Amino acid sequence: MKRVYVEDLSRHTGEQVEIAGWLYNQRGTAKLRFLLVRDGSGIVQCIAAKNELGEGLFALARSLTQETSLAIRGTVRADERAPGGYELLVTDLAKINDAHDYPITPKEHGTPFLLDRRHLWLRSKKQHAMLRIRHELIWAIRDFFNNRGFICFDTPMFTPNAVEGTTDLFAVNYFDTSAYLTQSGQLYAEAGAMAHGRVYTFGPTFRAEKSKTRRHLTEFWMVEPEVAFIDLDGLIELAEEMTVYIVERVLERRCNELADLERDTAPLEAIRRPFPRLHYDEAAEILVEYAKQHPDEGGVEFKHGDDFGGRHETILSDPYHRPVFITHFPAQIKPFYMKRDPDRPDCVLGFDMLGSEGAGELIGGSVREDDHDTLVQRIREHDLPMDAFDWYLDLRKYGSVPHGGFGLGLERTITWLSGRPHLREAIPFPRMLYRMRP
Amino acid sequence: MKRVYVEDLSRHTGEQVEIAGWLYNQRGTAKLRFLLVRDGSGIVQCIAAKNELGEGLFALARSLTQETSLAIRGTVRADERAPGGYELLVTDLAKINDAHDYPITPKEHGTPFLLDRRHLWLRSKKQHAMLRIRHELIWAIRDFFNNRGFICFDTPMFTPNAVEGTTDLFAVNYFDTSAYLTQSGQLYAEAGAMAHGRVYTFGPTFRAEKSKTRRHLTEFWMVEPEVAFIDLDGLIELAEEMTVYIVERVLERRCNELADLERDTAPLEAIRRPFPRLHYDEAAEILVEYAKQHPDEGGVEFKHGDDFGGRHETILSDPYHRPVFITHFPAQIKPFYMKRDPDRPDCVLGFDMLGSEGAGELIGGSVREDDHDTLVQRIREHDLPMDAFDWYLDLRKYGSVPHGGFGLGLERTITWLSGRPHLREAIPFPRMLYRMRP
Repeated sequence: MKRVYVEDLSRHTGEQVEIAGWLYNQRGTAKLRFLLVRDGSGIVQCIAAKNELGEGLFALARSLTQETSLAIRGTVRADERAPGGYELLVTDLAKINDAHDYPITPKEHGTPFLLDRRHLWLRSKKQHAMLRIRHELIWAIRDFFNNRGFICFDTPMFTPNAVEGTTDLFAVNYFDTSAYLTQSGQLYAEAGAMAHGRVYTFGPTFRAEKSKTRRHLTEFWMVEPEVAFIDLDGLIELAEEMTVYIVERVLERRCNELADLERDTAPLEAIRRPFPRLHYDEAAEILVEYAKQHPDEGGVEFKHGDDFGGRHETILSDPYHRPVFITHFPAQIKPFYMKRDPDRPDCVLGFDMLGSEGAGELIGGSVREDDHDTLVQRIREHDLPMDAFDWYLDLRKYGSVPHGGFGLGLERTITWLSGRPHLREAIPFPRMLYRMRP
Repeated sequence: MKRVYVEDLSRHTGEQVEIAGWLYNQRGTAKLRFLLVRDGSGIVQCIAAKNELGEGLFALARSLTQETSLAIRGTVRADERAPGGYELLVTDLAKINDAHDYPITPKEHGTPFLLDRRHLWLRSKKQHAMLRIRHELIWAIRDFFNNRGFICFDTPMFTPNAVEGTTDLFAVNYFDTSAYLTQSGQLYAEAGAMAHGRVYTFGPTFRAEKSKTRRHLTEFWMVEPEVAFIDLDGLIELAEEMTVYIVERVLERRCNELADLERDTAPLEAIRRPFPRLHYDEAAEILVEYAKQHPDEGGVEFKHGDDFGGRHETILSDPYHRPVFITHFPAQIKPFYMKRDPDRPDCVLGFDMLGSEGAGELIGGSVREDDHDTLVQRIREHDLPMDAFDWYLDLRKYGSVPHGGFGLGLERTITWLSGRPHLREAIPFPRMLYRMRP
C-alpha cells in the first residue's frame, strides 16, 4: 500500500492509499464518522462508514481521541466541499498510540497556558499555518538573494564587540574571558562584501531587553544583505524589490495557510512598487502637525530630532496601502557607522521601511561611512573603544569603497504577513524576558 | 556605461562595460600591463596598453597597488587563455581609494597571522573559493529539504536543558537566571516533526570544548532533519540521497572554486549510491584485527564497546571510495534518546556516516525512543533531571509515533568537499578556544 502525504492527495485521486498521522477532530453519527486527520503536511477528512468497516473497526474509529496517532487506508476522492478539496473513504485503520486527555482542546486557552505547552500548541491549525509561512518566507528571502548573486555569509554569534552599546547584550562565559552574543552581523558582513561583492547574513540575533511587550523576543532571526558599490537609492530599491518578491511568494504559495489564519489578503495583494518615500524632515512635520491636531491623544508628542515610537510609525504609514520608506534620519539618533549626507551633514544616508497596516519598522538600513578618518572621528564621538574596531577600520584602509546594507527582522515580517501581531507565535520556541521553557 | 559583474562578462562579449572592484595583482611591461581585477564575483584580466590609454592613465594603472579599489572600463573579449575565459581591453580607469602596504601578499604567511587578519584574508583566492562552496552547500541542503516537503523549523539558541551533559556547554547570564547555548536542536525538532511531519533545523550550535585540534570550533553550523514515521533504513536512505545531491550540486556549480582550491574532484565524482553499511560488530572486528596486524602503530587499540577515534574512522572508511555508514552502536556509548534495536537491546537503531578520503564523521543519526515508559527509564539510567524533560516526554504521551533524524556538520562537510582540512577556513569568522577576534 502506498504511504502518501495529505498535501499530495490530489495526485492520487481514485487510488487506494495509506496516510499516517494524528486525529485532529471527529464528529458524526452512530453509523458514519468524519475523522479529521492531520499528518503535518495538511488535514484530510476521512469518512468512516459502519457498513463499510464492520462493527469492530468502526468502534475503534469512534473511540479515537484527539491526537491519537494512527494509520488509515482508503480511496482518495475529489470533493469540492471537503477541506483541501479531497477526502478519504476509509477502508481500514489502525491505532498507533493513544492520546488521553490532550490538554489543548478546541476551547479557548490563555496564552501562558499555551506557551507552557508550546511543544504541543505547535500542532494547532493556526500555529501550524504561522510556521509554514515562516518557512516560506525564509525560503523566499534566500531565493531572492541567491538568485541575484549574493553569497550567504554566516557571521559569528560570539563577538568581543558591541555594535550599538553594551546595555542590551547577553554575556557568555567564554572559557577564561567573556563574549557577547551578536546583535547584528553587519560589521562582519561589511568585510564579506569587500571579499564577495554582495553577501547576506541570515541567522539568530540577540537582545537582552527587559521589555515584555509583544514586540520583543530575546532571540530573533534577521537577514542582513550588505553590498559593495551601492548608494542609498540602490539600497532602497533592493529593499523594495525584496519586499514585493516575498509578499508575492507568500501570497502565491501559502494561500491556504493565510486562509487558516483568517488573514484578509487584499491589503497584501494591493502592494506595488514604488513605495512612498518620506524625508525625515517631512515625517517630522507630519508628526508635529498631528500632535497639534490631536492634543488629547497621549504619546504622540513629537519634535524634530526625536526618534519614532510605535504610534508615530503608525501615523506615518497609515495613509498608504503599501510600505513606506523614511530616509535621512538625524545623525544624532543613529549609530556611528552610518554615512552622513554630504549635502546635509546633520542627516544620515539611512532609511527605515515601515510595513503597511501599522506593522511598524520591518527594515532598517544605511550607506556605511567609508572614509577612514571620518570613521575614527565618529567612533570617538560615540565614546566607543577604538581598539575594538581596528579590523573594521582596516576595511577603510585597504581599498575602501562605497557600500551599504540593511536588516530585515524575520519575526516582525511574519507578523505583518500573517496579520497576527504576536512575535511569540512567529518562531517555534519563543524566548522572552520570563520565558525559556519548553 | 553599463556596470556589470565579472561573473556575468560572458553575456557582454564585444560590449563596452564598467567593472568596479579591487586590484588583485598586476604584471607586464613599460607599455602593456595585465591587471587582475576582482569584484567579489570573480577575477578578470584587464589589459591596459599605453598607446590606447595615453601617458597619464597608463601611469595611473601602473601605480595601482594590491587591493586598491577602482572602476575600470573596457571592451569584453572572449579569450580561452584568459583566466575565466574573458578579458577586458581597458579604455578608461579611475582609482576609488588607495591601499598602501596591504598586509597579505602573495608570499606565504603563518596561520595565526592570517587569522588575525581574517577580515582581509577573506579576499584571498582560496578563502574566497571556500566560502562560495559553503554558500553553495547551504543552498543545496536547503533546496534538498525544501523540495521534499520539509519545513525549516528554527530551534532555540537559548535552552534550559543539556542534551548530552553539561560539561561542554556555554552558560549565558539570562537576566536573573542562566541559560545554555544549544548543542543540538534535535529535541525541539522532534516536537516540530509531530506538528509538521518533516522538519529540519539549520543554525549555529555551540560546544565549549577545550580542544585545540583542527576538528573543533566553538561555534559551528548544523542541519538536523527530523521525520515522523520513519525507520532506520529510511533515515539512512535520506542521508544517502542528501549526500549524493549536495556532492553533485557542488561539483556542478562550483567547479571553478574547486579548481582554485586545487581539489582533485575525481574522488567526489566517483561517489554513487548505495554507500556501504557496516554493523558496529563488523566494524569492531575490523578494528580489532587491524590493531593486531599493526602492533607498532600507536592509537589504534580497540575493543568491542569502544567509541571510534579519528584514526579508527579512517581505517574503516579507507577501503571505500564513497562514504560509509556504521550502524547499531552499543547503547552504552550513545545518548539516552536513541531507540534500542528490539532484536539486540544492547545496540541502538543509530548510525554514523563517515566521509570518504578520511573525512571522518559527517553525519550522526538515530531512530528516537518513542515509548514513554522506556524513555523515563533511560533518563533515569543516564542520571538526567526528569523535570527538564517533561515536555519532551509529552511527545510520547500524546500520539507517539516512530520517528528519527540526523545531524550533518556543515563545516566538516565543507572541509571534505574542498579537500582543505581546516575547519577554521570553512566559516567566515571562526571561533575557537583562544580566538574570538576579529
